[in-house]
Amino acid sequence: MPLKELKTEWTPKIEAALDNTIEAQDFESSEGVREMLRYHMGWASESSPSGAKGKRIRPLITLFMTGAFGQDPSDALPGAVSIELLHNFTLIHDDIEDHSPQRHGRPTIWKKWGVAQAINTGDALFSIAELSMLNLVDTLSPRATLDAARELNRTCLKLIRGQYLDLSFESAESVETATYLNMIAGKTAALIGFACQLGAMVAGQSDLMQSQAADYGRNLGLAFQIIDDDLGIWGDPAITGKSTASDILARKKSLPVLYGLASSVKFRQHWQKETLTTEDVSEMSELLVEIGAQARVRQASARFTKKANQALEQIFPQPNHYAQALFELTKVLLTRRA
Amino acid sequence: MPLKELKTEWTPKIEAALDNTIEAQDFESSEGVREMLRYHMGWASESSPSGAKGKRIRPLITLFMTGAFGQDPSDALPGAVSIELLHNFTLIHDDIEDHSPQRHGRPTIWKKWGVAQAINTGDALFSIAELSMLNLVDTLSPRATLDAARELNRTCLKLIRGQYLDLSFESAESVETATYLNMIAGKTAALIGFACQLGAMVAGQSDLMQSQAADYGRNLGLAFQIIDDDLGIWGDPAITGKSTASDILARKKSLPVLYGLASSVKFRQHWQKETLTTEDVSEMSELLVEIGAQARVRQASARFTKKANQALEQIFPQPNHYAQALFELTKVLLTRRA
Repeated sequence: MPLKELKTEWTPKIEAALDNTIEAQDFESSEGVREMLRYHMGWASESSPSGAKGKRIRPLITLFMTGAFGQDPSDALPGAVSIELLHNFTLIHDDIEDHSPQRHGRPTIWKKWGVAQAINTGDALFSIAELSMLNLVDTLSPRATLDAARELNRTCLKLIRGQYLDLSFESAESVETATYLNMIAGKTAALIGFACQLGAMVAGQSDLMQSQAADYGRNLGLAFQIIDDDLGIWGDPAITGKSTASDILARKKSLPVLYGLASSVKFRQHWQKETLTTEDVSEMSELLVEIGAQARVRQASARFTKKANQALEQIFPQPNHYAQALFELTKVLLTRRA
Repeated sequence: MPLKELKTEWTPKIEAALDNTIEAQDFESSEGVREMLRYHMGWASESSPSGAKGKRIRPLITLFMTGAFGQDPSDALPGAVSIELLHNFTLIHDDIEDHSPQRHGRPTIWKKWGVAQAINTGDALFSIAELSMLNLVDTLSPRATLDAARELNRTCLKLIRGQYLDLSFESAESVETATYLNMIAGKTAALIGFACQLGAMVAGQSDLMQSQAADYGRNLGLAFQIIDDDLGIWGDPAITGKSTASDILARKKSLPVLYGLASSVKFRQHWQKETLTTEDVSEMSELLVEIGAQARVRQASARFTKKANQALEQIFPQPNHYAQALFELTKVLLTRRA
């Protein structure tokens, strides 16, 4: 089982490269920006201990993809770092936009240093992500590096479109399933798609192969997000660490909720209440099962899971160690219980 | 006098290129992002009429600089557009961070659509600025285009450092003059410096010449900002359209105010009052003249103005039309009354 072994090998390398990339920036008399960035990334700084880090899934996918095409994953490291930094830039801004007070069990940047400094620090991480992508020129041709930088920004616009939709859902009475899928295609799937494409780009693969790699990533991302929605209502609290049906309580317009709002008067009536009791929430969760919303959600995640696996099988009919790790990772991510 | 003629020729070309660059983006089901961007840029959109636009000084400087080195300014257009879009991205975020409800006489994006959408829309403009810079590859080599993109992001980090300092001044008891100059070097002067450098880059100038061009721009930016601080207290209300000493009323820690806080007990006493009357404000403004703060501010702006002109004379001992326009622009910007 190569996944565990390769994760153990590459995760510390990614972490070191992320750290070096931020440390390489000259913050001059604005060292506070570095401190906020280190805090967000989960690293120790002068004034605070280290905290929980993200799982660095996206950069791992990029590196494994490059390795799966037979090239040294190290060649993709500046690109993988760029993707993880871009992801974290969006987290800093999303936390402000969604009023999230906590991430990884600690106060978010805006909660700790205020909205103004948090916006500004997110912008800094965006610039550093761009700079890291341009560092690919150490291993790629200038033209290929430009292609990667262009694709990074196109992907970023997709994330922004997704976030625009997600924010607009808050005030929407109802949301079409197609619009919801559009939203997660931008907000979640686009960056995972690009993480895969970039791995293929660094390995010098054709446009067709790059687009197949991106296709795998997008389907992986879509399935991942829909499973997240599923677990947000039917996840085992003992495993997820959240209360049952926490997404209903948080009034999150996730896929099962959208099905409920579209097809059950009773569900809508509950939803419109000022406050929801524990009884409401568990009745709503049961309602969603009764009207077939749970089944539809599981069909959707199964469909995208199948597409992701098919894409991967097509790209790597005879998988090497790294490709095997991608198959394993797909399975782990898409059969998770939390 | 070539300035008027060249401004008349190039301003509409810049405006069209800005518009085309934003229109070229595919916003799919998130057309609202485009609407917000068009509104901010001052262009008409489906739901609102056009408003006042910025003066597009930065892209004009880039184009004139390229022309001053004897190259067709059109070659620099995607870069000039990138700089103006980057500037506008920072305005969208700054307006949120500074709680500014109005710009060009209309509500700011955050005031009209909320903080969340405004952050997200600013991020979109940042990505589009990056994409526009990469379009320089149509006229430059891939390697030169990468250099321009790298410099754009380094400049952006300088802006962010400047904004970090500016935000931290709000809660600071006192601010050293050196720290203040550091702040405006980042927040105002760095982008004007890069606008000049980029013009030289596109014209294929040496690193030395690029750095002299940047030096001109930085000094122009520093002088410009200090004159702005001067006008914010001693500008003629009939010309500036603001009330006398409006910066004191707004409690802005501008350069004259910092001198006052550092060297006048009486000024500090006024400053610490909960609310300032018209009498307080005019007394404070007079105090600043008495203690020599006005004279020091004017010495500082004169010093940077002289440096800017010297740099320009050194670069263009025999100025062509475009270089003459730069000399004129420097004069217009640094002798303005509003």
